[in-house]
Amino acid sequence: MSNRTEISSLGEFGLIEHLTKNIELQNASSVLGVGDDAAIIDHFGKQTVVTNDLLIEGVHFDLSYTPLKHLGYKSVIVNLSDIYAMNAIPTQITLSIGISNRFSVEALDEFYEGVYLACQKYGVDLIGGDTTSSQKGLIISVTAIGEVTPDKFVKRSTAQKGDLICVSGDLGAAYVGLLFLERERKIFQESPGVQPDLENETYVIGRLLKPEARKDIIEFLSAEEILPTAMIDISDGLSSEILHICKQSNLGCVLYEEKIPINENMKKAAFKFEIDPTACALSGGEDYELLFTIPQSEYDKLVLNEQISVVGYMTEPEQGAHIVTKGGGKHKITAQGWNHLNH
Amino acid sequence: MSNRTEISSLGEFGLIEHLTKNIELQNASSVLGVGDDAAIIDHFGKQTVVTNDLLIEGVHFDLSYTPLKHLGYKSVIVNLSDIYAMNAIPTQITLSIGISNRFSVEALDEFYEGVYLACQKYGVDLIGGDTTSSQKGLIISVTAIGEVTPDKFVKRSTAQKGDLICVSGDLGAAYVGLLFLERERKIFQESPGVQPDLENETYVIGRLLKPEARKDIIEFLSAEEILPTAMIDISDGLSSEILHICKQSNLGCVLYEEKIPINENMKKAAFKFEIDPTACALSGGEDYELLFTIPQSEYDKLVLNEQISVVGYMTEPEQGAHIVTKGGGKHKITAQGWNHLNH
Repeated sequence: MSNRTEISSLGEFGLIEHLTKNIELQNASSVLGVGDDAAIIDHFGKQTVVTNDLLIEGVHFDLSYTPLKHLGYKSVIVNLSDIYAMNAIPTQITLSIGISNRFSVEALDEFYEGVYLACQKYGVDLIGGDTTSSQKGLIISVTAIGEVTPDKFVKRSTAQKGDLICVSGDLGAAYVGLLFLERERKIFQESPGVQPDLENETYVIGRLLKPEARKDIIEFLSAEEILPTAMIDISDGLSSEILHICKQSNLGCVLYEEKIPINENMKKAAFKFEIDPTACALSGGEDYELLFTIPQSEYDKLVLNEQISVVGYMTEPEQGAHIVTKGGGKHKITAQGWNHLNH
Repeated sequence: MSNRTEISSLGEFGLIEHLTKNIELQNASSVLGVGDDAAIIDHFGKQTVVTNDLLIEGVHFDLSYTPLKHLGYKSVIVNLSDIYAMNAIPTQITLSIGISNRFSVEALDEFYEGVYLACQKYGVDLIGGDTTSSQKGLIISVTAIGEVTPDKFVKRSTAQKGDLICVSGDLGAAYVGLLFLERERKIFQESPGVQPDLENETYVIGRLLKPEARKDIIEFLSAEEILPTAMIDISDGLSSEILHICKQSNLGCVLYEEKIPINENMKKAAFKFEIDPTACALSGGEDYELLFTIPQSEYDKLVLNEQISVVGYMTEPEQGAHIVTKGGGKHKITAQGWNHLNH
């Protein structure tokens, strides 16, 4: 960046105006957007879905290897993913940020470029929020709002015994991407002259830095008239998420290691760290894939979709939650997802 | 507090469960609350209003003189105030917090006690949010959602020339309360043995630490069938807020100093700091009163409400924004509200 405009030169309201002046509302339900005490959404005849996430520098992201544009994009995506995980369509977001003087207006513009890119791609409107100073790093709070046909939303607590367990895409790559970036950061700190060697790792790093929400899966389920019995997005790893479904549905489950979708690039990358790709899929976070259960009778409808893998089935609660390994062993599933409170 | 339970002993999900286990949903529109990817609100036949605020330790609050229960209460109130300022009724909130290990579960319970007290008093449901760790102080993000009869929401941009400018309650006290608490904090830092002398200042300190949102004013306006032409809540001081209405409505205004509502306790307290009570009302923040404009024809309807003061009127934009002092002088109004970015 060649220019540096101090944020203080715009003032709080000037900054908000600067950052939001190009917004064009895309949804008819966005009655009133940024610029008042609150935004107005018209959801006549639909149910409203709302979710909120808080992202804190040093906890959820590291600016030393996260481009601001990617961070803006991802901040939106992680919330949209929660809306899709309810079988709903996101329509609006609000975005609040806490920023320190070390950020220039140009840096913020990059961040918002990512935000607007995600909004455009997923057809959601940015309708409000709050901008404030932070003495302590960048803080991002996104609220996403969506709509769903009345009573078509899908909870975590309504899986049934015998239901098939399905996941979208592939798992574990974002975690391996993080391992590479953390390693490069340490190398850079020790030897600032060394160039990073990440060219072969674009897949796993892309999965971490620029995740997508699975709008396509929700559209597919709708087109095929499949209503999952339970659904959750995979932000903390497959183990942690399937245990949420088991606990809230009061059921057990069996997963099959050989059925867990693993990308070839991720597998090669994991081996460079001498770690088990399956462990990454089970315990690595931030994949933002969907995990859902369907009645066995719906199997024929989704078998042709290559983006969906059946990885197991729901059982009686007494049977607990287990994974059958490739070698035929049976192990208890424990939650070892990314638990930010233990960091 | 005699007990101290480490947050890490509960884990993230255990903590969420602990903090939310006593929630009873109050609104029929709260279809699904805490415990899934997102909450579900049914707003059939109403328009949805949404607002989001981010509160950061060291910027928006100082824990050395802010009891956690008050902080929880206020975190909700500042968002509800934004919903009322749209002439809407708040129905739900989401709450996300970033916390460090220095907080015990008991400390968080105190914070949530204040949150639930505000929810109960204002009839709103806590329906979701996010709990994460923060290495950098306490971070609070609240999203409030409300409903309004279609097209009865009141914007900032629709004041009309000749409209009367009204404010609820009294102004400036929260700012004077802050001055006292900041002074006591400094005295305490220099001489930890000295007891604070705040007994006579309960009014101004209460206005800062435990503000209320003006639900009563919105109910009064509805009962009297008064639809304001423009409305905003006073979070940054009267000057800053009336300038928002002027700018967005493309109008000027005249305020009369003698009409600005000042509480007697606040006046005495301001004199102890040798500052002008009117300056506090104009530039002090965090009063959370409502500022609104009404057609002159509606004046008779509100004249009997002692909680509403008429402080001026809207003019042609060419006349600018001015205040007429008690001495008869006329001064340009400038925004000197609490601008967190300049701190």
